[in-house]
Amino acid sequence: METLLLDKDDVEQNTPMAELVSAVEDAFTAYERGDAQMPAKSYVDLPQYNGDFRSMPAYLDAGEWDAAGVKWVNVHPDNPDRYDLPTVLGTMIYSDPENAYPLSIMDGGQLTMKRTGAAAAVATNYLAVEDASSMGIVGAGVQSYTQLEAISKIRDIEEVVVSDLEEERVARFIEHFGDDFDVRAGPISEAGHCDVLSTVTPVESPIVQAEDVGDHTHINAMGADAAGKHELADDLLLAAKIVIDDHEQCTHSGEINVPYAEGTLTDDDIYGEIGQIVTDKKEGRTADDGVTVFDSTGLAIQDVAAAHVVYEHAKQHDIGTGFDLLGV
Amino acid sequence: METLLLDKDDVEQNTPMAELVSAVEDAFTAYERGDAQMPAKSYVDLPQYNGDFRSMPAYLDAGEWDAAGVKWVNVHPDNPDRYDLPTVLGTMIYSDPENAYPLSIMDGGQLTMKRTGAAAAVATNYLAVEDASSMGIVGAGVQSYTQLEAISKIRDIEEVVVSDLEEERVARFIEHFGDDFDVRAGPISEAGHCDVLSTVTPVESPIVQAEDVGDHTHINAMGADAAGKHELADDLLLAAKIVIDDHEQCTHSGEINVPYAEGTLTDDDIYGEIGQIVTDKKEGRTADDGVTVFDSTGLAIQDVAAAHVVYEHAKQHDIGTGFDLLGV
Repeated sequence: METLLLDKDDVEQNTPMAELVSAVEDAFTAYERGDAQMPAKSYVDLPQYNGDFRSMPAYLDAGEWDAAGVKWVNVHPDNPDRYDLPTVLGTMIYSDPENAYPLSIMDGGQLTMKRTGAAAAVATNYLAVEDASSMGIVGAGVQSYTQLEAISKIRDIEEVVVSDLEEERVARFIEHFGDDFDVRAGPISEAGHCDVLSTVTPVESPIVQAEDVGDHTHINAMGADAAGKHELADDLLLAAKIVIDDHEQCTHSGEINVPYAEGTLTDDDIYGEIGQIVTDKKEGRTADDGVTVFDSTGLAIQDVAAAHVVYEHAKQHDIGTGFDLLGV
Repeated sequence: METLLLDKDDVEQNTPMAELVSAVEDAFTAYERGDAQMPAKSYVDLPQYNGDFRSMPAYLDAGEWDAAGVKWVNVHPDNPDRYDLPTVLGTMIYSDPENAYPLSIMDGGQLTMKRTGAAAAVATNYLAVEDASSMGIVGAGVQSYTQLEAISKIRDIEEVVVSDLEEERVARFIEHFGDDFDVRAGPISEAGHCDVLSTVTPVESPIVQAEDVGDHTHINAMGADAAGKHELADDLLLAAKIVIDDHEQCTHSGEINVPYAEGTLTDDDIYGEIGQIVTDKKEGRTADDGVTVFDSTGLAIQDVAAAHVVYEHAKQHDIGTGFDLLGV
């Protein structure tokens, strides 16, 4: 038997985004219904290398399909300077739940970007205004591309405002999307007054203030992934309808972690989890809502759902490299 | 950059056992000294498939070298009958701790067998009589081979007695080792009266009684890997000097888990952990000792140490298949 190796390009080219958004919604649904298993991430901290590893195993049963796997991922902030490598590298093992055979091993970095965009799209679908046509991006790094790619699948985005201190990153983003959207550079407040805003920065001091966003903007707060990081000012957060992906992860390392740790923001300020929204246990945007915020930390079930979509698509199109790793 | 793929045969052929025994001892030492990180195994239980997955991440710093990785492994007892696959399949991702690049992805099944044999050899080296020359094996399945392979590296084993209810397994074992050792089939009590005994069965009712073993036999109890399993009778255990690999794992799923849960065996009956022995915090065998028992559940640090040995050996001999999975 062979395991299908899918490299970065294979993952990139075998992620039909509309299908992925749907699969990630299925994953949130399965988790909410108790049809998923997701042990807490295990951390291996390596302060001597200013880095850490995270092991993210999960299983989910979406009804029509089920999937299991583990993502082994890291955060090594010195990588770009010291090794000319990305800060985050990931490897995903995607396994058949029935007999545990590793169906595929794939690049987990590309997978992470795709599934993160898909999660924002699921939230946006339930929380943005129906006729949203403009989107702001704050932080034009590698994770920003899949935000627009995914969200444009569920809303008819025409106008895009991208904000980043590095002009080169902005230019690259505009170059990439210029043919498909009306993209322009702009300050944070212009990005924030779009119908949808995705913030994708690693900042530890909020850079989006309450006055920077529109009255009905939906914000995907994607950047915070560790204690101490947050992108949105406390008063902006506190006035918004806040939806999180997972209570434990968000309160420890998500957008809300800093005000939550300080006691400024409490459980009473959290409207609900995305799983409750997609299963209709709680309403998404209502006529009364102003600003909404989705605090996304990234769940292992998203990776497994994404690996399922990529593997099935690649197999169907005979893409990838078969390798008999286990000799069974 | 490329990740080195090492299939089952590559792992088999690139595990110099003496080096591996030494590396596994280094791992036990590092763990005892606080120079290792080993989060608890994460379990994904799939009762609908009568199986489970386990995620085993670890890091260890052995001084001369350090290593990180994760093993994704399962137990699906129906695999042989239903899928013609082994019950246990494993995939190991071996990463550079400094920048997290996945240096190698290798067959984790073969690796598990090798490192399990190596752990028994480390314990045997400290706990068996110095002049041990005979070895018994109870249970001649796939895990038994590396017991003799590894233990014969640290004691001059000449005579081997193998005991198994299935004659075919016994014949295969004798065929495999007949040229190198004086191997014969025998009942459990004959295997148990050797200087060293390794039990490698999945039984839930003890099959080795107190009268089945010699006065100074060292026993490697390798078989128990889940709650409810044990191979040695309670009175045999209670009379022995018991060394465990890890308190949490052994009391939950190791040889001692059943009498421990029943309260028949308590912490007072446990002499120490293997890490305390190899770091000379506690003595191994002394002149006063009779039967000794090593309760081995298998630690993630063993896998990482084994992956280090395999990767370095394969790289040095230009073996394996390079694959650019991450595209960085």
